[in-house]
Amino acid sequence: MANAPVDYPNEFAGFAVHDTKEWSKPKYTTYKPMEMTPYSVDIEIECCGLCGSDILTAQGSWGGIQTPQVVGHEIVGKVVKIGSAVTLHKLGDRVGLGAQASCCLDCKRCKENNEQYCAHSVTTYDCEYPDGYVSQGGYASHVRAHEHLIFPIPDEIKSEEAASLCCAGLTVYSPLVRYIPKNLPNGQVPRVAILGLGGLGHLAVQISKALGAETFVFSRTDAKKEQSFKLGASSFIATETEGWEKDLFDSFDVILNCAIGLSGLNIDAFLSILKVEGRFVSVGLPNVEEKYNVSPFTFFSNGASLCSSALGSRKEALDLFELCVKHNIRPWIEEIPISEAGCEEGLTRAWAGDVRYRFVFTEFHKAFGTGSA
Amino acid sequence: MANAPVDYPNEFAGFAVHDTKEWSKPKYTTYKPMEMTPYSVDIEIECCGLCGSDILTAQGSWGGIQTPQVVGHEIVGKVVKIGSAVTLHKLGDRVGLGAQASCCLDCKRCKENNEQYCAHSVTTYDCEYPDGYVSQGGYASHVRAHEHLIFPIPDEIKSEEAASLCCAGLTVYSPLVRYIPKNLPNGQVPRVAILGLGGLGHLAVQISKALGAETFVFSRTDAKKEQSFKLGASSFIATETEGWEKDLFDSFDVILNCAIGLSGLNIDAFLSILKVEGRFVSVGLPNVEEKYNVSPFTFFSNGASLCSSALGSRKEALDLFELCVKHNIRPWIEEIPISEAGCEEGLTRAWAGDVRYRFVFTEFHKAFGTGSA
Repeated sequence: MANAPVDYPNEFAGFAVHDTKEWSKPKYTTYKPMEMTPYSVDIEIECCGLCGSDILTAQGSWGGIQTPQVVGHEIVGKVVKIGSAVTLHKLGDRVGLGAQASCCLDCKRCKENNEQYCAHSVTTYDCEYPDGYVSQGGYASHVRAHEHLIFPIPDEIKSEEAASLCCAGLTVYSPLVRYIPKNLPNGQVPRVAILGLGGLGHLAVQISKALGAETFVFSRTDAKKEQSFKLGASSFIATETEGWEKDLFDSFDVILNCAIGLSGLNIDAFLSILKVEGRFVSVGLPNVEEKYNVSPFTFFSNGASLCSSALGSRKEALDLFELCVKHNIRPWIEEIPISEAGCEEGLTRAWAGDVRYRFVFTEFHKAFGTGSA
Repeated sequence: MANAPVDYPNEFAGFAVHDTKEWSKPKYTTYKPMEMTPYSVDIEIECCGLCGSDILTAQGSWGGIQTPQVVGHEIVGKVVKIGSAVTLHKLGDRVGLGAQASCCLDCKRCKENNEQYCAHSVTTYDCEYPDGYVSQGGYASHVRAHEHLIFPIPDEIKSEEAASLCCAGLTVYSPLVRYIPKNLPNGQVPRVAILGLGGLGHLAVQISKALGAETFVFSRTDAKKEQSFKLGASSFIATETEGWEKDLFDSFDVILNCAIGLSGLNIDAFLSILKVEGRFVSVGLPNVEEKYNVSPFTFFSNGASLCSSALGSRKEALDLFELCVKHNIRPWIEEIPISEAGCEEGLTRAWAGDVRYRFVFTEFHKAFGTGSA
């Protein structure tokens, strides 16, 4: 059943979660957009990736959800309206939007290319603006966001592939580019471990390699070994093998933890394979209840650090797209035409880990009666 | 009662813990030194500081202790014997030894000034050498250690003051010199928080200031406020005051946790006051049972890191002594003549926190009949 064309700009339409118990069954819903600001840009959405955050938000795992809620923050589409002060985009541009929709641009963090950590940041969905409006995401006909968080997409990258770069790609690029050491002594090549080969991990392998690091993939079983090498890994470690860490003492500058959950994660073993002052960086966000349970003792053998990284800056997004063009980095995606049934299929299969490696919802113009603007 | 002169070099004498239940009552004991190696240096001890580690080791808090055990690793004295390959020291030199007595000098860590993280490191006491000999520390007539871990003491620094620099000073200097950012944009002055004003903390304040950072002291109550300012702090925060963290958002590059225990530590509040990519570094080693219980979520607001730092390198020790001479940095010490009663007084009072800010045991020549060499 096709839906009636959305009555844009009076309303947006999207597939919204109405109840966390029914998290995998978003329903077609129309809603009022937030007020335009001088810096607002409207994107008529062409496609949107499915991020693990969409599932955890829909399930209420991060502490509730404001329903109805349209998730989705790997958005690509066309600029169809701009506020009076917008200078970064013009009507008709093909652009992307990731997980952050607004920031103050006035604080030290914003001014130092750390706007993802701005205290006034508004995420792309399920986050309140100062006026009380709750942001709505990209399983939708349109999205409205601040021009600064919207990125031009290079012609070389297809929309369906650009989508996952806006969140998954940027989220792994930022810590890798910040923490892979430059200028190691004696021409040493930096070494990176990617932990968990999924939507984030499979991009991290390609990006880490492009940034010049020798890249290892760590996965529970051997199942993803061959694909890891295809993505550019130089080694593969199955952690179900007892004692895997023994031969890897003092090996890694960065371990990027792309796994969503912490359960079963032998953090002591992973810390032991870091070089002095190496970093264990988490980018996968688990349920709020999950904790690292670590003793300060654990770190004393190498002065290693435990940290997390969130998203990336606009500058990093632009650098990432350039890197992807130059090194032919693309997400491996499965496309699903968007609809209630399509959302359910994507969410259910992604939650079961049944995706290689990222779902992207497509055919938005058909679903929402858009595309003629 | 004076003890008979020690029969050096056939034996060393020291005050040894014989039972963790009697941790505060070391007894006068003689014991065989380890075998000389070509790189061994014997120090005839003049004085030795009391470190929190001495107490936790004596109590068996770090998982047992090999008795009889002489603790103490803030040692200053005179070189009285050297191995055939020693080049760094000569007979009669005044030298110091901290918490590390040996390392391989052959691994990457040793070669890159990270020998404190050498996998073959032997600590100054309660640690087995490859031949099975258990190292014995500095509440003793003599100590034998590798020349590399023994440091020349500048003439400007008295032995009793140099002692605490060898462990407490070096332990805080290493993370401060590594992690205080250089060349912040727009002439910003780096900002450091010292958490806990004790043996480690009171040196950290002086060192942090000498390294050019604006230095805040965090302590539970106001009791140490005045002394903090005397040591060079620019601000003082009493954490018993509800909401102390509110005005400090995004303020610190480094938080150095010098407190021994984690109990009562509001780690979320401390992480919230770090700048983007700031570091919370622990140098105080708690009981092995204590854990940080942190969610990856906690770090997402600023990409901050949690880490520990152990000791420092030889290079850092030499740099520290130079810094102390240049900036007139000295520990604030209370001296106790060494004896069974003196050890008990020092250990008991230090465990109760009744010291401003470091005990140093003195009059070793009298206790052991040494000093004529």
